[in-house]
Amino acid sequence: MGSAAYTTSSRLLFRQLFEKDSSTYTYLLADTSHPDKPALLVDPVDKTVDRDISLVKELGLKLIYAINTHVHADHVTGSGLLKSKVPGVKSIISKASNAKADLFVEPGDKITFGDLFLEVRATPGHTVGCVTYVTGDGPNQPQPRMAFTGDTLLIRGCGRTDFQIFSLPKDTLIYPAHDYKGFSVSTVGEEMQYNPRLTKDEETFKNIMANLNLSYPKMIDIAVPANMVCGLQDVESKAL
Amino acid sequence: MGSAAYTTSSRLLFRQLFEKDSSTYTYLLADTSHPDKPALLVDPVDKTVDRDISLVKELGLKLIYAINTHVHADHVTGSGLLKSKVPGVKSIISKASNAKADLFVEPGDKITFGDLFLEVRATPGHTVGCVTYVTGDGPNQPQPRMAFTGDTLLIRGCGRTDFQIFSLPKDTLIYPAHDYKGFSVSTVGEEMQYNPRLTKDEETFKNIMANLNLSYPKMIDIAVPANMVCGLQDVESKAL
Ligand SMILES: [Fe+2]
Ligand SMILES: [Fe+2]
Repeated sequence: MGSAAYTTSSRLLFRQLFEKDSSTYTYLLADTSHPDKPALLVDPVDKTVDRDISLVKELGLKLIYAINTHVHADHVTGSGLLKSKVPGVKSIISKASNAKADLFVEPGDKITFGDLFLEVRATPGHTVGCVTYVTGDGPNQPQPRMAFTGDTLLIRGCGRTDFQIFSLPKDTLIYPAHDYKGFSVSTVGEEMQYNPRLTKDEETFKNIMANLNLSYPKMIDIAVPANMVCGLQDVESKAL
Repeated sequence: MGSAAYTTSSRLLFRQLFEKDSSTYTYLLADTSHPDKPALLVDPVDKTVDRDISLVKELGLKLIYAINTHVHADHVTGSGLLKSKVPGVKSIISKASNAKADLFVEPGDKITFGDLFLEVRATPGHTVGCVTYVTGDGPNQPQPRMAFTGDTLLIRGCGRTDFQIFSLPKDTLIYPAHDYKGFSVSTVGEEMQYNPRLTKDEETFKNIMANLNLSYPKMIDIAVPANMVCGLQDVESKAL
């Protein structure tokens, strides 16, 4: 634990982007060694779509996928807007989410961009269709690996559907969908050791989760129905 | 421009941390290959000192320096609190800042932690004592280099005291003290090309800066006097 700074890859361009109102992280990944420079966004937010599109343009990338880890309850996905503003972008979500999208993935599937890829791992719990996207394993893939955990595992918080994630190497970098304390990245090893919910036994964990008394998420009534159809602005679905 | 994801170094541990009220980035750097695991914080914020101390402990690091890029006007530095809570921590700021600290640095100085170091570059303008800290050049130092620019150069904003920064290699990673749009990192090459203020000629730039009509910073009357003495909680200076 604790040695590497960040992923090493000469071909991966990686940017972590933040939406402050919902404390959501959006991740931009691209294969810059491929002639097309194909790129994807993980968990884009509707409010920051224009920022993301500018960045993609400035970096000379070709956005091909807008990917969600799950049906978010706290912000509206940017997938629909991205599809309407950038021709050719396809939205992706897990089949188990029951949401609308162009492509559906299942555990074990690979999402390829250039010579890089993400693996899909099932991490249900927060929602039934939650998946974690993990960068590939192989000679050209980034090392250490990076896991985009959505709301399944937040840094020092959340989680328990950790079995799929904790079977990854300890130096795997954890990139969640949110952070409320100002952290930006962690590792599997760190979370196994210091995540307050994950270091408890199953019984204690169940008690903690049953007694959270969480307030009703302020965006849930707007966000969930919108996200089930890929964001409010799914022009293609409205045209049908 | 645009290829590498993040700095490659097997010995550097690097974490970007965020304080939401002032949109301030604090950076943790440590040499994890050194037996002491010496660490430093760039631009710590008073409100997030406890978070930062926990993280330092969890990662098994030994915090030796609390470093500021300049006398901040928008938040109170965490240097004083860190000094009072973590024995042995020394505060560092530029000599030209005229602020109080344990150690003063001048352009060309090196700040060493284990076998890694930061170089000090003069980047006055935002304040007279503004400096940029740049990771070292050499076989064991991180590649590409990282520049902690404070308020001298924000991503796609601010700046003009860019000459010292823009003489760095184009793949140098830019880590500012703030971001208000949700960016977390950029490169010298990108800023040279897309920073709206830096792509203007000198006359246009002067006009833009003269007509910003910035509102009076809400924290300035509290933050500046406090930061001149290393944060409100400089126990050692009070004891003198
Ligand atoms: Fe969420
Ligand atoms: Fe500032």
